Amino acid sequence: MIVDTSTLSCPLPIMDHDTVQLAHGSGGSLSASLIEKLFLPRFDNAMLNQLEDQAVMELPACRLAFSTDSFVVDPIFFPGGDIGDLAINGTANDVCMSGAVPLYVSAAFIIEEGFAMESLHRILLSMEQAGKQAGVTVVTGDTKVVNKGSCDKIFITTTGLGSVPDGVMISAGGIQPGDKIILSGTIADHGMAVMTSRENLSFQTRIQSDTAALNGLVEKMIKTTTEIHAMRDPTRGGLATTLNEFASTSNVGIKLIEGNIPISPDVKGACEILGIDPLNVANEGKLVAAVPPDKVDAVLDAMRKHPLGRQAAIIGEAVTDHKGMVAGETLLGVSRIVDMPVGEQLPRIC
Amino acid sequence: MIVDTSTLSCPLPIMDHDTVQLAHGSGGSLSASLIEKLFLPRFDNAMLNQLEDQAVMELPACRLAFSTDSFVVDPIFFPGGDIGDLAINGTANDVCMSGAVPLYVSAAFIIEEGFAMESLHRILLSMEQAGKQAGVTVVTGDTKVVNKGSCDKIFITTTGLGSVPDGVMISAGGIQPGDKIILSGTIADHGMAVMTSRENLSFQTRIQSDTAALNGLVEKMIKTTTEIHAMRDPTRGGLATTLNEFASTSNVGIKLIEGNIPISPDVKGACEILGIDPLNVANEGKLVAAVPPDKVDAVLDAMRKHPLGRQAAIIGEAVTDHKGMVAGETLLGVSRIVDMPVGEQLPRIC
Repeated sequence: MIVDTSTLSCPLPIMDHDTVQLAHGSGGSLSASLIEKLFLPRFDNAMLNQLEDQAVMELPACRLAFSTDSFVVDPIFFPGGDIGDLAINGTANDVCMSGAVPLYVSAAFIIEEGFAMESLHRILLSMEQAGKQAGVTVVTGDTKVVNKGSCDKIFITTTGLGSVPDGVMISAGGIQPGDKIILSGTIADHGMAVMTSRENLSFQTRIQSDTAALNGLVEKMIKTTTEIHAMRDPTRGGLATTLNEFASTSNVGIKLIEGNIPISPDVKGACEILGIDPLNVANEGKLVAAVPPDKVDAVLDAMRKHPLGRQAAIIGEAVTDHKGMVAGETLLGVSRIVDMPVGEQLPRIC
Repeated sequence: MIVDTSTLSCPLPIMDHDTVQLAHGSGGSLSASLIEKLFLPRFDNAMLNQLEDQAVMELPACRLAFSTDSFVVDPIFFPGGDIGDLAINGTANDVCMSGAVPLYVSAAFIIEEGFAMESLHRILLSMEQAGKQAGVTVVTGDTKVVNKGSCDKIFITTTGLGSVPDGVMISAGGIQPGDKIILSGTIADHGMAVMTSRENLSFQTRIQSDTAALNGLVEKMIKTTTEIHAMRDPTRGGLATTLNEFASTSNVGIKLIEGNIPISPDVKGACEILGIDPLNVANEGKLVAAVPPDKVDAVLDAMRKHPLGRQAAIIGEAVTDHKGMVAGETLLGVSRIVDMPVGEQLPRIC
């Protein structure tokens, strides 16, 4: 959801400057004032508030999932979200794809000198909201400011930590022939939302990013069975990339029933007009999982009861043929190889 | 130490391109080839090699230290180091300032389109070497490529995880009046090395960055006593900032004996010529600690036996006067308030 500042209950605090200055990244007193006025109120928690250079957390003996992502999306505000919620959701998702419960997040900001305080505030509010929804706490961070022209507005790197429940062992290499491939919902929403909102495309649609934290959905799936053989969120490179990674890492073939892949009419239309294969377009609130055939109905049932899994569908299966490759069957029954995209269709999509 | 490619045993592998292309950040097959050829050989370990979107680590019940930093230093290669070893050492240091043993690191790269593969390779070699020296393993990462002009060459965000030994409880808020303030060595080396190497300064010196991982030194100190009340590495904002943070967080005054602060003649000279207070200049391989008076001799002894602590000195003490403030006593016996620097003297110093 877009954070519309006009409806925000929390206005920008009175700041020393309207835009971010180099001095705000100096580590000196202006840095301290920026952190205190803008960052701490958003991520208010005992560990962060100590303002140590590191957070110290007590954890029981466990397996930990640890993941990092830099977010460089352009534009930073797009239909359905912004760089802030994207940075929280994206990292929460990478952590929970191992089956882990995401708990803690660090956030490192690289900000261009002259960036509007109002925009920074909007982004932080959006991170706050996303963190609450995902149930993760921002416990440590860093802020650097670079000279005007040395970065484009703002980049955010988040790193997540989560605890993997006992008995859960999910990896892209665990797929067995016969496993069904489940997709949690429509594809290509995020990528097309960002692309159609770029200034150079006059093109107007109702397409919204699907940015969302998937850990609630994953929890429901794991409660149903711990026998989920592989799980991944198809972000950059899209569904085609994730399925190819599955096929090569697990050394199986993947047969894809293209007609079963959910896609919204608006996204489909935009892809057709722009000549883009939606299989290659980024998603930010979807997951693909490989599940043994005797568990697939129960998992699908559980997913469809969750708001983020209502359109979950079986989109294919793992086979012993064409190992390491993904073969798509079109609606007309024609088979084609679904390759990983070589290059970059949509730079700075996340 | 500078990684001089002419002496490297490891030449650049044969790559598809001489410079980084947008497609190398697409998540598609060119991304996969970059990771496989350039990144994996440097950070070779079982967790990273699985190429999951997250690393899963087994840890015993413990307190974990968690810290993140973005590195945007300019120039990326400077006397004594580069952005690569800086990114490893800086995060290892933030983790170990809590007394923790740094174990795992994530690394997220934001690279400008057109960046030379040769330079990326040098940086990765330097990270590899620094990781080995610090004893930390890079277990997960991310690579984004942005359009030419959207970032300045390369930014690296590292996030570290470490395990805090039982009984160790170090924080900037733990200082008691009477505690001695120890500094591990000379100040301002890193900041002045970077500054004097910038193109716009014709100024040539032998000043080298002090970039180094301090966890070995910290281990020696903690073996001597767990009663270290506060510890921090004085990076951005320099020693003045760290001491002011100590004073305000612990609500004590700090009396600084300026004549006891180690500084190399070259650095002192450069600071004088440029009119810069070395107390405000960044360090990347130094620590400041507050230690009770009955432990200070043992801690100093232990430090001086370690290569990174040979010049360790008592530079002041915590007092009940002028709470929250740092008062420096000059060689002439004059007292002055040592403030946190307000602004940015040296942007992009780390």
